[in-house]
Amino acid sequence: MEKMFNPQSIAMVGLSSNKSNIPRLSLENMLRWGYRGQIFGVNGRNNDAYVDGVKMFREIDELPIIPDIVYSLIPAKLVPDMVERCGKMGVKRMAIPSGGFSEFGGRGDDLAQQTLDAARKYGIRFVGPNGLTLANVKNGLCLPFAPVVKPPLGNISVVSQSGGVGLMIMTHFKAENLGMAKFASIGNKLDLDEVDFLEYFGQDPDTEIIFMYLESIIRGRELAEMASRINKPVVVFKSNTTDSGKRAAMSHTASVSSDDHILDAICKDSGIIRIRHFHDFMAVAKAFKLPPMKGPRVVVMSPAGGLSVMMADLCEESGFEFADPGEAFYESLRNFSNAGVIKFSNPLDLGDIYDPKFVAHVICEVMHSDQVDGAMYVSFTPDMPSGDSVFKMMLRTDLSKESWGAILSSGKPLGAALVTPNLSPFKQAINVPIFNSPEELVRAMSFQMKYHTRQKQMKDCQGAEDLAGLPEAREWLEARKGPLGEESMELLQACRIPTPKSAAAASVDELEKALNGIPFPVVMKVVSPDALHKSDVGGVQVGVQDVEQAKKAFESIKSNLKSHAPEARFDGVRIAEMAPEGHDLFIGAKRDEVFGPVIVFGMGGIYMEIFKDLATIPCPARKSAVREALSGLKVYKLLQGARGQAPADVDAFVDLVRQISCLMAGFPEIQELDLNPVRVFQKGVMPLDMRMLVK
Amino acid sequence: MEKMFNPQSIAMVGLSSNKSNIPRLSLENMLRWGYRGQIFGVNGRNNDAYVDGVKMFREIDELPIIPDIVYSLIPAKLVPDMVERCGKMGVKRMAIPSGGFSEFGGRGDDLAQQTLDAARKYGIRFVGPNGLTLANVKNGLCLPFAPVVKPPLGNISVVSQSGGVGLMIMTHFKAENLGMAKFASIGNKLDLDEVDFLEYFGQDPDTEIIFMYLESIIRGRELAEMASRINKPVVVFKSNTTDSGKRAAMSHTASVSSDDHILDAICKDSGIIRIRHFHDFMAVAKAFKLPPMKGPRVVVMSPAGGLSVMMADLCEESGFEFADPGEAFYESLRNFSNAGVIKFSNPLDLGDIYDPKFVAHVICEVMHSDQVDGAMYVSFTPDMPSGDSVFKMMLRTDLSKESWGAILSSGKPLGAALVTPNLSPFKQAINVPIFNSPEELVRAMSFQMKYHTRQKQMKDCQGAEDLAGLPEAREWLEARKGPLGEESMELLQACRIPTPKSAAAASVDELEKALNGIPFPVVMKVVSPDALHKSDVGGVQVGVQDVEQAKKAFESIKSNLKSHAPEARFDGVRIAEMAPEGHDLFIGAKRDEVFGPVIVFGMGGIYMEIFKDLATIPCPARKSAVREALSGLKVYKLLQGARGQAPADVDAFVDLVRQISCLMAGFPEIQELDLNPVRVFQKGVMPLDMRMLVK
Repeated sequence: MEKMFNPQSIAMVGLSSNKSNIPRLSLENMLRWGYRGQIFGVNGRNNDAYVDGVKMFREIDELPIIPDIVYSLIPAKLVPDMVERCGKMGVKRMAIPSGGFSEFGGRGDDLAQQTLDAARKYGIRFVGPNGLTLANVKNGLCLPFAPVVKPPLGNISVVSQSGGVGLMIMTHFKAENLGMAKFASIGNKLDLDEVDFLEYFGQDPDTEIIFMYLESIIRGRELAEMASRINKPVVVFKSNTTDSGKRAAMSHTASVSSDDHILDAICKDSGIIRIRHFHDFMAVAKAFKLPPMKGPRVVVMSPAGGLSVMMADLCEESGFEFADPGEAFYESLRNFSNAGVIKFSNPLDLGDIYDPKFVAHVICEVMHSDQVDGAMYVSFTPDMPSGDSVFKMMLRTDLSKESWGAILSSGKPLGAALVTPNLSPFKQAINVPIFNSPEELVRAMSFQMKYHTRQKQMKDCQGAEDLAGLPEAREWLEARKGPLGEESMELLQACRIPTPKSAAAASVDELEKALNGIPFPVVMKVVSPDALHKSDVGGVQVGVQDVEQAKKAFESIKSNLKSHAPEARFDGVRIAEMAPEGHDLFIGAKRDEVFGPVIVFGMGGIYMEIFKDLATIPCPARKSAVREALSGLKVYKLLQGARGQAPADVDAFVDLVRQISCLMAGFPEIQELDLNPVRVFQKGVMPLDMRMLVK
Repeated sequence: MEKMFNPQSIAMVGLSSNKSNIPRLSLENMLRWGYRGQIFGVNGRNNDAYVDGVKMFREIDELPIIPDIVYSLIPAKLVPDMVERCGKMGVKRMAIPSGGFSEFGGRGDDLAQQTLDAARKYGIRFVGPNGLTLANVKNGLCLPFAPVVKPPLGNISVVSQSGGVGLMIMTHFKAENLGMAKFASIGNKLDLDEVDFLEYFGQDPDTEIIFMYLESIIRGRELAEMASRINKPVVVFKSNTTDSGKRAAMSHTASVSSDDHILDAICKDSGIIRIRHFHDFMAVAKAFKLPPMKGPRVVVMSPAGGLSVMMADLCEESGFEFADPGEAFYESLRNFSNAGVIKFSNPLDLGDIYDPKFVAHVICEVMHSDQVDGAMYVSFTPDMPSGDSVFKMMLRTDLSKESWGAILSSGKPLGAALVTPNLSPFKQAINVPIFNSPEELVRAMSFQMKYHTRQKQMKDCQGAEDLAGLPEAREWLEARKGPLGEESMELLQACRIPTPKSAAAASVDELEKALNGIPFPVVMKVVSPDALHKSDVGGVQVGVQDVEQAKKAFESIKSNLKSHAPEARFDGVRIAEMAPEGHDLFIGAKRDEVFGPVIVFGMGGIYMEIFKDLATIPCPARKSAVREALSGLKVYKLLQGARGQAPADVDAFVDLVRQISCLMAGFPEIQELDLNPVRVFQKGVMPLDMRMLVK
């Protein structure tokens, strides 16, 4: 991969001097960006000796050396053969921008497979097809075939599945004066995909932040694991979030947890910063250009009262706290007030302080206060006629000059936004990030603050603990396949998870024996492979108080089944102790094709599918992650003891979620499972019913 | 008010030739904007004969005429006297920008009252204090004292509580090439407020759209009523939404419905377009520059596949539907495809069509299709080196030239966004609105589409119907005051609303008589003025089956009360029929200080305060508005019959909400009320308990 971005030599297949030749646009980019390696041209259908000074060859194998990378922009149908020929001569890296492969369907799929087969045969790695491929600002490599102006050199590397979006990022980086390191437009990612580039950028010393625009995620689990291993911010914008149909599934879990929820869960778990709008790439880039904000305490400053009010709303919504720099600080401001008509507090209205030097002084004071984790300064420059006035003074501080050093020395971020159109020339003139709106500033600083807070927290967390009863669980699972009902509870018993005492009776005669050792009252449920929903066939009787009632209940369940479903087999009833009162929650798990096993938990009961008060986290789940996710749910308030009730055993529930998540992680044959309901008591927790699907 | 914006003569009090004189900045604005009325200067502490050619007077009453408006920028403490002197000479209109009044507290409050008293005494109306006051692009009136460049003349008038935000709007209008009609920065709005300006702009022929930035709303009800009377889009950005404390209140309603929810409800009801970000002012202005989008069917077009994918997500989230222009249309596109590597569908990827003229042709075809209500075109212009290339062709269509007429003739909107920095020069060159991002485009078009859809719907709606039993209700209410418990149900009976049969028994001896006519089983509840929460004192017994059980229950309730609350008075028990099973919903209402009576309804029961699945609408409520709000709640799915249950009587519940809303609207003495629970059956509905507060 290193040589992909730092090739000493490049062959450009398809190049010609024709005015509309597209590879020539790539060549012009290389020349414009100042690439200094060797470049060769290849074109069998043209007699150019040189194109833009680059020597031309008719066949790839006529080249005097084996190029570090072959860039081949030719029609899709010719690509497999070109890969074959490159392989034969010993080429190891290719960049293939051509379109017309799988994205077009039909014949394109075959061409994709042939291309991949040829590459595998010779150990060739390639980026593409159907993408703009690679660029490296540092060495002037610029393969994209659209004319591109070089952005400033910086520490952000970009992976984009769409070439257009990649170009948009470059264009905006240039306008915002943000620096870029490396660029990969991966298109159909037939060979190298975002995980490969993430791995490379993770160890690339020139890259400190990784941006990804993705329209599909195939190796989701690997992406998440890679992101959490890398100690660099990874920012993902995933589009194409609304069109994926939900597959039919037997479990609640599959129907209530969408792909988008799972992606959210995975991002949260692995520390990926997930953005939802294109312009947030630039917002986050600006935020990470600032020192880390290590806590939520902020001071907001503005010369415009209206902006202060807007900022107060935004900061409160985004999890910031308003720092209190102390009465002495406010007192010191009063000396510099002009008309004395403004009261000082946080947000700090600077509208009455007309001396730019003093504004700078205030900002420095704020930054160095122990009570402050960071500050935000919002202003605007109205479109004013020429000529100086007191307003120009009020609205313009000399932040870019002497005071900036003092601000930097605080080691804390000062986020500045100017609500002014056409800021680009101003941004080019200074190397301080300028946000375009209060919203952009607060959102971006919130991403940054949360990233750094999480980095700190991660160190305190333990990994997933082991599961009790692993061998017994394995033995039980090896003997089972397909959809399983209440008998799944035996798996929980194997794992030392408490379940209601129960026994089965195939006939009325077996009832008394079965009841032995189960305290009354009991619940009785039909046993029938044909009755998945037992209540629907009158197959459940609760509150059975004694043996006589149990006998009646047995007969009644049997006849109910017959009348509801005459064809259904009747295998007797299962008797179980009735759990005491408590809160009924839900735990489910499924194996996502892209992201692997996830666990879903939250409010159960009849409202479950209506309120979807559920959290999703990847398996195995850390206790701390379960607890954090649970505390974000509405049902958490119930567990804590709303309306004067005693609090429920949150610890026991959290531990049960962890255990089930370990079960999912440890046994790939479990496809889905639902524990519903899971009753949470004041002390302890007990799953009352369970279903699962074993492959 | 007309003369406020169109004065023939202005006196400027405080003007001087001093370099730092602030009124002089206002004068310079007037001269720069080309105001052509008479201007006089007034300054008692200065000997200037003329300032910038304007004749100066030492006292206001030395002026040769009574000016149409007096603009007085002098220290707050001098303002009341100046108003008095203006009043004496017959001035009827003033603009008072000075700060230091109520916003500063203390002495400022007194000055505000004195100013108001003086104005009332002489029938003076004024705008301010603490605001930039007035501007009118058409006649060059520009009183704001910050130097302001004139925005283009247009049809949008602006009311801003903050001067700074007002200036920001003007600056952005200029940069976005958006037109402004009139401008009012109302500051503390001590006399004229946003409702006054809304009324004026509502009938002002130069104003077609009204923008408001507000930090407080005092006359909320009037604002809403005015907005719904005016047949022009009213766009409101209300900041300062998070800091208002919740007042303590006896009812659920007060605690679950925040000020912000109520504002949302009021905006929805009165057709106000509520925005939540400053930049949405410009977004909405651009959307309303386009023809109305009368339905949700959209075609999205882009030469960049990535942008198409983003747009698909955004459109789906914002309530648009993807139009189907038909197979024949797609077929016709194939002839113009370049490499034949792109499949046509909606969103329409134009990336393979390199002929700008043909792109324009496609757009026109789309616009004129019967299947289409509007279209969106999103592109970007990468920062390209100079020189022409096929990419410039692909990314640039000649929309601004001959094709634009054909688009306009469709009478439908084509929203165009360019994801390109520094668009301002481009925007100045054409008079077609250009959006800055896919998000801005879709959000703004969604505002526009919903506004026009609603305008159509409003015509179909009936007003609030009358309430049955009005005289009986009035009689009952006249006899009551203070907090009322279960006895409030009598008011419902007066209004012919069904309630459970019930009777009270002060002693065991009265029990049998009370039970007469109430079918068993019954519920029995303690009657005690000291037990607001009856369950908490063991004061409720359900499922009482016969007279014997009723006697036991009476004694047990009595002794429970004694042991739980020894001091509490025991006035007997109330016996009521037990309602059949059903869904327990909630209806509450309160009288908001700003917006008047609102009704809140949704899921009741123990989860109510946790899930807050509640809707808020103003009283009286139209049935159609209740039904629409209810159908947006999660509990609606339950009512429709989730999990195979029979559907509940939604109509009856909707009608009950309407009735209660009429009660609130008709009886101002009702401060708050809760019907909790309201049981909804398969047929019919019945409130089971009620509390209210009567003033």
